[in-house]
Amino acid sequence: MDSSTSLYFANSFFVLVGACLVFIMHIGFSCVEVGMCRSKNAANIAMKNVMTVAIGVVVYFLVGYGFMFGQDAGHFIGLSNFCLAGISPSSVMEGAGVNNYIYFFWEGIFCATCATIVSGAMAERTNFFAYLFFCAVAASVIYPIMGHWIWTSDGWLSLLGCHDYAGGLIVHALGGTCALVGAKMVGPRIGKYNKDGSPNAIPGHNLIYATIGVLLLFFGWFGFNGASSLDITADATYISEVSTFIGGAVGGLTAALLTLALYHKVDPGMVLNGILAGLVGVTPGADVFSPMASLIVGILAAGAMTFAVPFVDEKLKIDDPVGALSVHGVGGITGTLCVGLFSMENGLFYGGGIHQLLMQVLGLVVILPIGAALTYVTFRIAGVLFHGIRVEAEDEIIGLDECEHGMNAYGD
Amino acid sequence: MDSSTSLYFANSFFVLVGACLVFIMHIGFSCVEVGMCRSKNAANIAMKNVMTVAIGVVVYFLVGYGFMFGQDAGHFIGLSNFCLAGISPSSVMEGAGVNNYIYFFWEGIFCATCATIVSGAMAERTNFFAYLFFCAVAASVIYPIMGHWIWTSDGWLSLLGCHDYAGGLIVHALGGTCALVGAKMVGPRIGKYNKDGSPNAIPGHNLIYATIGVLLLFFGWFGFNGASSLDITADATYISEVSTFIGGAVGGLTAALLTLALYHKVDPGMVLNGILAGLVGVTPGADVFSPMASLIVGILAAGAMTFAVPFVDEKLKIDDPVGALSVHGVGGITGTLCVGLFSMENGLFYGGGIHQLLMQVLGLVVILPIGAALTYVTFRIAGVLFHGIRVEAEDEIIGLDECEHGMNAYGD
Amino acid sequence: MDSSTSLYFANSFFVLVGACLVFIMHIGFSCVEVGMCRSKNAANIAMKNVMTVAIGVVVYFLVGYGFMFGQDAGHFIGLSNFCLAGISPSSVMEGAGVNNYIYFFWEGIFCATCATIVSGAMAERTNFFAYLFFCAVAASVIYPIMGHWIWTSDGWLSLLGCHDYAGGLIVHALGGTCALVGAKMVGPRIGKYNKDGSPNAIPGHNLIYATIGVLLLFFGWFGFNGASSLDITADATYISEVSTFIGGAVGGLTAALLTLALYHKVDPGMVLNGILAGLVGVTPGADVFSPMASLIVGILAAGAMTFAVPFVDEKLKIDDPVGALSVHGVGGITGTLCVGLFSMENGLFYGGGIHQLLMQVLGLVVILPIGAALTYVTFRIAGVLFHGIRVEAEDEIIGLDECEHGMNAYGD
Repeated sequence: MDSSTSLYFANSFFVLVGACLVFIMHIGFSCVEVGMCRSKNAANIAMKNVMTVAIGVVVYFLVGYGFMFGQDAGHFIGLSNFCLAGISPSSVMEGAGVNNYIYFFWEGIFCATCATIVSGAMAERTNFFAYLFFCAVAASVIYPIMGHWIWTSDGWLSLLGCHDYAGGLIVHALGGTCALVGAKMVGPRIGKYNKDGSPNAIPGHNLIYATIGVLLLFFGWFGFNGASSLDITADATYISEVSTFIGGAVGGLTAALLTLALYHKVDPGMVLNGILAGLVGVTPGADVFSPMASLIVGILAAGAMTFAVPFVDEKLKIDDPVGALSVHGVGGITGTLCVGLFSMENGLFYGGGIHQLLMQVLGLVVILPIGAALTYVTFRIAGVLFHGIRVEAEDEIIGLDECEHGMNAYGD
Repeated sequence: MDSSTSLYFANSFFVLVGACLVFIMHIGFSCVEVGMCRSKNAANIAMKNVMTVAIGVVVYFLVGYGFMFGQDAGHFIGLSNFCLAGISPSSVMEGAGVNNYIYFFWEGIFCATCATIVSGAMAERTNFFAYLFFCAVAASVIYPIMGHWIWTSDGWLSLLGCHDYAGGLIVHALGGTCALVGAKMVGPRIGKYNKDGSPNAIPGHNLIYATIGVLLLFFGWFGFNGASSLDITADATYISEVSTFIGGAVGGLTAALLTLALYHKVDPGMVLNGILAGLVGVTPGADVFSPMASLIVGILAAGAMTFAVPFVDEKLKIDDPVGALSVHGVGGITGTLCVGLFSMENGLFYGGGIHQLLMQVLGLVVILPIGAALTYVTFRIAGVLFHGIRVEAEDEIIGLDECEHGMNAYGD
Repeated sequence: MDSSTSLYFANSFFVLVGACLVFIMHIGFSCVEVGMCRSKNAANIAMKNVMTVAIGVVVYFLVGYGFMFGQDAGHFIGLSNFCLAGISPSSVMEGAGVNNYIYFFWEGIFCATCATIVSGAMAERTNFFAYLFFCAVAASVIYPIMGHWIWTSDGWLSLLGCHDYAGGLIVHALGGTCALVGAKMVGPRIGKYNKDGSPNAIPGHNLIYATIGVLLLFFGWFGFNGASSLDITADATYISEVSTFIGGAVGGLTAALLTLALYHKVDPGMVLNGILAGLVGVTPGADVFSPMASLIVGILAAGAMTFAVPFVDEKLKIDDPVGALSVHGVGGITGTLCVGLFSMENGLFYGGGIHQLLMQVLGLVVILPIGAALTYVTFRIAGVLFHGIRVEAEDEIIGLDECEHGMNAYGD
């Protein structure tokens, strides 16, 4: 076995492990969303997350992977390899250097994470089928086509030089933007806002689930970021693991200190979201952030999140039960911009000039509005198909577990 | 270091990771069983699952591994290497190509999964020690000897060509069959059946545990199936990861759609079991199912499970709190037969004729009745040793946590 | 790529996976401590564990790593590489043979485990900030400096030959000793001891969390011990995985049988702690214990733990809600001594004479008293900084969730 063959197998193994780690993030997302919402909707939320994986994987297999990584058409879309047709299990994925089947596994489980972000922001009042319809569209069309632009060598944003290492833009900022649109369209939960517009806190029912979930996400993120290099011998792998490690840790610390300063108590929910925001923040540039830059980016992303949560809640009056807009949207935007500032390769603060920063801004102003528009259209269609994207008021009050599933998460 | 030595270390590493993934499946099994049963028995169920690992590993070390992988005697049993005697930590496991110690770790943790399946079907009314006695016998004798037949090059079923890649037959179909016998012998829980024979639903107490459990099992299955090739360079590895990914996802989707059609609601418990049935279904042929075949097998296994659950409950009148018979038994049989139909190598639908299908039928008609008989004998002996395999009625009503352990899972 | 370069990448990959496994142990620690304590303190405990990671990683990055693995000064301390300064992401860690950044990731997440042990023993009555202050000191000074002594080739204890493969001494015995000092200083929880000095049991609130936690710890321990060899080709890797596997399993079995004999019931809490004690016991010598020796060491460590728990509770009258002193302290001491007895290389029972045993005793009599003294000083300072290390009695009665965080873990 020659050296390049060895490397192919080693990297296939590495990405296989990475895919497993990303898979476990779905348990993390489930736990966070369940824990931060009320017990009367727990089964529904668990089901949404499980069905996100089930539907996401199937539609990505059927069409999404082909749109994303099939033969390029006009730098805009892939148009082959639907259902993995024409792909041999012993073939190398061009450009990635890993086994084609493993690459599908890796990309397929990555894909499902984007829709999941939307799930959290719309929790506790959205029609189950309307969400699943969005999920299917997101995993088969929205994410794959925009992913093609930025994550394939032929994609037009990639050709322009927009840098999105592990999806800070295309997963988190995009997911957060879709979440914003979805949460705005579905409206706040009953009882969230008083007549004078002031918000009420609606506490989640299990902080332990949320804690387990965040730590599982942190754990899985070592695959999400680390294996995004697709190469166990690349410096990017080693750098990104340290970025992830430091970014997540300092994000939690930042939120703890800020809430202590602002509210005189360490706010557990904010600390958990601080870790996530720190992780999101380093994601787009985990490969090009030095450890010290990761420390700064983690502080910035978690700090931005800490102020964004009350801003969304009180000023925008958008009801986001889990803080997805602030964690993934604000955190992802912060991190995407920070690539232009802190990239060791060509960031503004490293003497690289303004070019990379402009490309990052370009990525944001292209991806986010288009993502928002597609989300809007998708939920409008869902509204027609399923008689509205929101459950009946009485069902919302009783709880979705009872009304959508005829059961109770905590049965006895 | 030459190429074959490198491969030996790479594969030892790969199987080490696979073993860790299978290990985490025991958390998954624990969570599923705890969540699908009542809170008054939660500590007892947790203990059963923990003790299954504790006892399973120790007896497999003492005798099971020797019976399974020791020097072959008459194509029927292994008879050496008890307590790993005579095995150097730097030796290669013949036939497997991986380190001997890692192979023991891998096979030992695999072994414990078989007994666990039985635990679920007999939950909430079985004598703790009777179950543990069965567990010890299963892990030291039943599973290892039949495993020798099918998973060693000298085993007679292996020589005949029965194909069981990752244990769809020898773990799941066998485990499901043992579960059938155990559940029948111990009888239904008090209150499960009315005087007219109609069943009552006895809801589990925590769907969130069950959801976490199923997703952890899905996660671990990438080791269970993927690393069963024992070779990171084999196509079987890559094929089986995709089979697992698609089989599990489409299984959940199938159960969701079927329960929606049948009961007009997406049934969370069925969706969770659909994922498991899809995973079980692809397990025996994960290495020889194309992605599209895995999609079909996942649909068939989950569909069969969806109809089997009410059949077992209403027609057979066997009380199976977690659906283990339908998930592992029916799913495992479906998958084992599907190898004969869908194998890319020699399946009936791939022009391979009827031979493989017959060998799969042979495997089933040999393994399952013998497994059933051994389970019957084991529980009869357990009944003598422990004054019956069932707890007293009053203890069952109070709950096993209080009566068997003098405590409560949820203490305050 | 030549052979040594391949090995460097393979080992970097291996240690990366190991670091991820150790990371997940923090979820395990969180679940165990939350589950074994009362619901009114659950959020506080979750936060303590999360903040342990957040603070631990950041201070280890800032100073701890430099003290531990920087340029040696007088065999006593490292004094370079603070903030990873001067370390290239593509450089090899001298002596370890793995990538420098991955090594930092691995050591950093290891470091945080030591403080966590203390958290458990002081749960439910300790001032949040006093604990976090200790955590910061432990992760930046106490653990790194003593770790330098024993885990670097220049360290004086290492030069003398004290053997601590994966931290049975420097993580567990040390952590258990710090826990003893902390628990003694903070005093027992209100209601723990009657006026006549007899103890009351204060049951935890969720055995399922505790069970999940212990199994996650077991899972992570395959990284903690296995990857401590830092070399996927070393016999130590393979031996240590089997030691871990057998030690943990037999530990649980030992505690089950002992509690059955002593109390006529299998005690779930003891079984869980038995698994942990068995794991702790094999940790210092996992690389030099044969499988049979691991079986014996696991029995000894879990047996010692089973007797230590009531001894600490009833005789020492130290209130240790999770049994950390007995599991980590007693288990770690047992295992550290067992290296001198059972080491295949030079243990007393293997004809190696008394030398190794004496070195093990030396390690214990050096590390533990110094650790105890530093812990004492640290908590005294914390007491001055934060107006005592204990919360007000009324806050303790209401619960730390309400008083320290203004919320409730189980909100609705």
